[in-house]
Amino acid sequence: MQFVNFTVALFTAFTMQARSAQQELPVLILSADAARDIKSEKSTDALLESSFQYSRRKADEVLKHPVTVPLPEDAGGGYTHEKHKRNYADMYHAALLFSITGDKAYSGFVGEMLLAYARLYPKLPLHPMRKENHPAGKLFWQGLNEAVWLFYSIQAYDLVKHEIRRKDRDRIEKELFRNMVRFISVDSYETFNKIHNHGTWAVAAVGMAGYVLGDKDMVERAVRGSEKDGKTGFLKQLDELFSPDGYYSEGPYYQRYAILPFMVFAEAIAQNQPELGIFEYRDNLLHKAVTTLLQLTNQNNEFYPINDAIKDKTYFSEELIFATNIAYERYKDADLLPVIRQTGRVSLTNAGLITARAVSRTEGETYNRIPMLIKDGSRGDQGGVALLRMPNASGTRLDALFKFASQGMGHGHFDRLGILLYDGDNEVLSDYGAARFLNVEAKDGGRYLKENKSYAKQSIAHNTLVADETSHYQGKVSEGSKNAPELLFSDFREDILIVSARENNAYKDVNMTRTVAMIAMEEAPDYPFLLDIFEADSDTPHQYDLNFRYPGQLMQTSFPYQRDQTLSAMGKNNGYQHLFKMASGKPGKGQATFTWLEGKKFYSITTLTDEDTELFFTQTGAHDPHFNLRTEKSYLIRQSGAKTHVFVSLIEPHGSFDPQLETVQNPDSEVEELRLVFEDEDYLVVSFRFRNRPAYLMALCRGETDEDGLHKLQIGEQTLSWKGAYLLTRKQ
Amino acid sequence: MQFVNFTVALFTAFTMQARSAQQELPVLILSADAARDIKSEKSTDALLESSFQYSRRKADEVLKHPVTVPLPEDAGGGYTHEKHKRNYADMYHAALLFSITGDKAYSGFVGEMLLAYARLYPKLPLHPMRKENHPAGKLFWQGLNEAVWLFYSIQAYDLVKHEIRRKDRDRIEKELFRNMVRFISVDSYETFNKIHNHGTWAVAAVGMAGYVLGDKDMVERAVRGSEKDGKTGFLKQLDELFSPDGYYSEGPYYQRYAILPFMVFAEAIAQNQPELGIFEYRDNLLHKAVTTLLQLTNQNNEFYPINDAIKDKTYFSEELIFATNIAYERYKDADLLPVIRQTGRVSLTNAGLITARAVSRTEGETYNRIPMLIKDGSRGDQGGVALLRMPNASGTRLDALFKFASQGMGHGHFDRLGILLYDGDNEVLSDYGAARFLNVEAKDGGRYLKENKSYAKQSIAHNTLVADETSHYQGKVSEGSKNAPELLFSDFREDILIVSARENNAYKDVNMTRTVAMIAMEEAPDYPFLLDIFEADSDTPHQYDLNFRYPGQLMQTSFPYQRDQTLSAMGKNNGYQHLFKMASGKPGKGQATFTWLEGKKFYSITTLTDEDTELFFTQTGAHDPHFNLRTEKSYLIRQSGAKTHVFVSLIEPHGSFDPQLETVQNPDSEVEELRLVFEDEDYLVVSFRFRNRPAYLMALCRGETDEDGLHKLQIGEQTLSWKGAYLLTRKQ
Repeated sequence: MQFVNFTVALFTAFTMQARSAQQELPVLILSADAARDIKSEKSTDALLESSFQYSRRKADEVLKHPVTVPLPEDAGGGYTHEKHKRNYADMYHAALLFSITGDKAYSGFVGEMLLAYARLYPKLPLHPMRKENHPAGKLFWQGLNEAVWLFYSIQAYDLVKHEIRRKDRDRIEKELFRNMVRFISVDSYETFNKIHNHGTWAVAAVGMAGYVLGDKDMVERAVRGSEKDGKTGFLKQLDELFSPDGYYSEGPYYQRYAILPFMVFAEAIAQNQPELGIFEYRDNLLHKAVTTLLQLTNQNNEFYPINDAIKDKTYFSEELIFATNIAYERYKDADLLPVIRQTGRVSLTNAGLITARAVSRTEGETYNRIPMLIKDGSRGDQGGVALLRMPNASGTRLDALFKFASQGMGHGHFDRLGILLYDGDNEVLSDYGAARFLNVEAKDGGRYLKENKSYAKQSIAHNTLVADETSHYQGKVSEGSKNAPELLFSDFREDILIVSARENNAYKDVNMTRTVAMIAMEEAPDYPFLLDIFEADSDTPHQYDLNFRYPGQLMQTSFPYQRDQTLSAMGKNNGYQHLFKMASGKPGKGQATFTWLEGKKFYSITTLTDEDTELFFTQTGAHDPHFNLRTEKSYLIRQSGAKTHVFVSLIEPHGSFDPQLETVQNPDSEVEELRLVFEDEDYLVVSFRFRNRPAYLMALCRGETDEDGLHKLQIGEQTLSWKGAYLLTRKQ
Repeated sequence: MQFVNFTVALFTAFTMQARSAQQELPVLILSADAARDIKSEKSTDALLESSFQYSRRKADEVLKHPVTVPLPEDAGGGYTHEKHKRNYADMYHAALLFSITGDKAYSGFVGEMLLAYARLYPKLPLHPMRKENHPAGKLFWQGLNEAVWLFYSIQAYDLVKHEIRRKDRDRIEKELFRNMVRFISVDSYETFNKIHNHGTWAVAAVGMAGYVLGDKDMVERAVRGSEKDGKTGFLKQLDELFSPDGYYSEGPYYQRYAILPFMVFAEAIAQNQPELGIFEYRDNLLHKAVTTLLQLTNQNNEFYPINDAIKDKTYFSEELIFATNIAYERYKDADLLPVIRQTGRVSLTNAGLITARAVSRTEGETYNRIPMLIKDGSRGDQGGVALLRMPNASGTRLDALFKFASQGMGHGHFDRLGILLYDGDNEVLSDYGAARFLNVEAKDGGRYLKENKSYAKQSIAHNTLVADETSHYQGKVSEGSKNAPELLFSDFREDILIVSARENNAYKDVNMTRTVAMIAMEEAPDYPFLLDIFEADSDTPHQYDLNFRYPGQLMQTSFPYQRDQTLSAMGKNNGYQHLFKMASGKPGKGQATFTWLEGKKFYSITTLTDEDTELFFTQTGAHDPHFNLRTEKSYLIRQSGAKTHVFVSLIEPHGSFDPQLETVQNPDSEVEELRLVFEDEDYLVVSFRFRNRPAYLMALCRGETDEDGLHKLQIGEQTLSWKGAYLLTRKQ
């Protein structure tokens, strides 16, 4: 239905566009009016002024050097690759400066450089460093960079074209832009029509070129796909790549990247064809896309490093400056303003101007992160990600992420039912992220390293369960893409945030169910902790490994262990070949506690063990011939030979070390008792007790639950009765 | 000469002291007048107010709980240990609050607690957890803590005693303080008369007790030693423990600790016996003691971790608050004020009041760190420490520390001619510091770990040369204390900071000479680097290992290497047993470059190699049964079978990685050529050249140099002639 409307709107709108292009005024995201207002308001608006100065510094630096457009030769990180990237950024900043100041030195530079590209481009073959099975570019080894180049350069051209002589404009449009559009949208048909971030960059660049060149066909193909049937193109990408909650299937790191072409192209559409209502599409999807992305950050403002992700990336990245500004302009969501204020810059765009005005009228530096259940899948039925967040006594928060999302395409990791844990600034249970040194040429040209596949993507590189030393879905994207985990239940209250999910397809005959609860007991509400119940269920015996990656230093264990004198790998395949076995222990029946120190705080994992439990300490670095892996540590709980096993673990932050005062608080785990007190086909009951506090019972219904059904269970003297999937109550 | 004067002054002064004690007004470091002024000025002085509020929060917390004085049972980190430490801090803050507010709830608490101690103390035997060969305490496992307890408690008593009933005062003075003074100064005669930080705490505590109790004998013994002959005691400690440059023989970490009793007792002396001129003693030694200590910090304000040191300790530590305030009060050195402003607190003392007034009258947040040559040894003839510091393009600094100091007593490490390197916030070449988790009971009671001796103190745990896998002076303190390295020459100019030192006694038949130069070439003045020339000279062949500890991740090497599939230890003893061999290579003749990434910057070491050179990558963790060692990495250059060898290395920061912009700058070493172009008995000449820059020659005179002698040398076509120990010039 929506589709039909869009098709009609697309055609009627084009008459307006053609007119506005003739007037030669900018048609994309910085209008002549906005540029004039930025010029006049920046002297009294700190945010506009700093944003202007930022671009001015860059643009002025640009003018000092001659225009250089080298013949493409190098892969990522190499000279010509970096130079062509630099060139589009240089043109963009120079064009902004011209728009705001009117100084023709800037527009002259842009025109000259575009002409140089117009001379070079038609002669270019595919890039010499292109890789097999990866879409090639001409200026760059991969086509993706080509689309990004066009994305920025067409914006620069939009701002300066009326300053360029007609003859030169014709040459630039014909030899450079139309050639490049053809390469990106026709020669690279497959990428252009792909439902993937590479496709998003391609359609955004081509669609914006269409507006600037006044080419209706380009715009239509960008919005509705090469065949103009809506089966591919921008709208289809909006349909397929985001969940109704605004979760992007590849995960936050790539969402951060893709959000830029999504928001900027949407802004260009809204500017040129407002009647399309692009910002209202799918129930204001683009609003949720931005707010959900911002929520997917830890307390250092870094995106959660699930799937392929560079770990240092924060919401201060360039892409977010554009995205948050446009989101504010379009949705007037004041919750975005603290992020923009923290960033200290706005984009020099219509949206940036409006946002800067709003920031100057408001206060508040603190961006509010909240507990959230974010569903994955275009229809919201492909699992999701849960963010469990509670305030703690340090004035920061305990944050857990529970991932039961879909595969996330080629950049997805095999980490079904994995968790991450943060305590304020501290990473407590970590993800390796991606094995990649972005743009460092010495590290395989800055691309994903071999170890990304052999380690970082494998299940053992995550905080989840691995059966038989084999990754989920055998580490095959095609298999993993067929199924997503299933949300069993969730409940978010002040004293408990609980989520339970099931993954029955990661292994042929092992069903996995994980229930993660963040709990703040009435007796110690400022000391939240995590209760983690991981069930593996099969008809045949398996080796089950529950892995916890802990940054930090071992302080103590409640069990004896043996250190290995010479270190060798834990296994042969599926990531195990990269782990050195550092130590192992057999704790026997009871509960095993492991305590470590990280960032001047203490953390403990207390786990139920039996006679078969083995515990391992491992460290990355084995079979790593080029030192491509960072050295990181894990604690691994192994249960061998069982058909079914329930791992019960309690993970608690519990103390601190102050090096200035030389004081240590609570270095020992506070957990005195952890027990599985009942287990049958229908129910699991766990009891736990902290020192000097009453014992609690957590009862879980196994499998599906009738929300209205009443459950009754006798535990010793105590009768438990409850409605719903779980019960947390004091033990009597 | 000075001695005689002091003896006379000491006796005449005592009449005054006796009078002032009778008036029952405080006689130590917070006078009644100053307390009154703090009270009235704090409302308009932010620093006084925050300092007052800091103590008030602590004191108010104290009043919420009953007085608890447990029977001593636990070692460091355990309950009774921490509680007795807490108690003296509680009394101190409560006493401050009483002095400033006059609120008798605070003084009542102090009196009550002191009475409880007066009841407990006479009955106490030596502490049950005391250790053999370590001076024991009664409240604490070690006597040191006992002296610290007295140090604070006597100050608390000084402030409140006129509020305590005469009968209780008599009891407190007799049963507690006099008993404790006897234990510290008579029973523990040896520690009390030791020239060591334990001795400083003891004499400071006892001396201050003497002023408060009006006991002339106590004061005399504290100032001039038990025998009152000046051979031990406070003045002798000032004579022996500091160099004329204010360097403390144990190094900055312990200087930070000892500076508190030094400064506070000096302040008490000046208050009660101003005619002693204690702050003018040894040419204003205590001024230099504080300023030199502050200079011995990196750009994170952390003390350089040479010798036994906890690495997180900054100049914001409590001790420095007292020390900087007193130093300002006494010497009016405005360079101290930025440190005090950064700290955000002053001590609630006479000195703190004066300092806060000064801070409020001035501006400036930046503490100025400068290049320095700091001599060690009570007469300045025991080597020293050089701080080479140059500004860089990032707006921060490249900082090198070159250590050619004396052994530093029991806490000294065997790191003769070792270097450290920092680049802004980044540790580039690191020191392990001490193997200790201070006050973490699970880690051997928080004491120094076994691995401190077996690894952290050993030469291989440092950035220096090790012959035959044996530490300097065979790792024996008694041997190491017999000799110090010798400064050969130093020269500090804008474009070069160069220091050369020799150590001929660390090995029976190996002489070591290291020359470290920080250079800022005219062509790139903002990119300083380090040229490191380490000569080992012997009549017999040895295995020479030059070690560089690098935090960070290997990016690339100019040479091939083999990774070990199973890891085993590098050696059997002297720290080598704790290093896993990770990889090794034989580069052959030429220059070998190793590049790593740390803190988003790139660093390279380029070293001359020959056919015998072997290169190793190592990692700590071998033979570490309790995971006591942090995992850290080293690059080791081994030269086997040579009698004499000159290691020539160039260490350069050269680029950066910006994860937000995803840009990489200069990831490759800029060094194109490094050569030893001339070597004979008298001279060494090294040439080096960076990409796109002219080549340079560095000529060194070997051994002693006649400052006025003229040196002449023909290098190819070029005639070098110079005066002095070295020449740096362009190659023609």
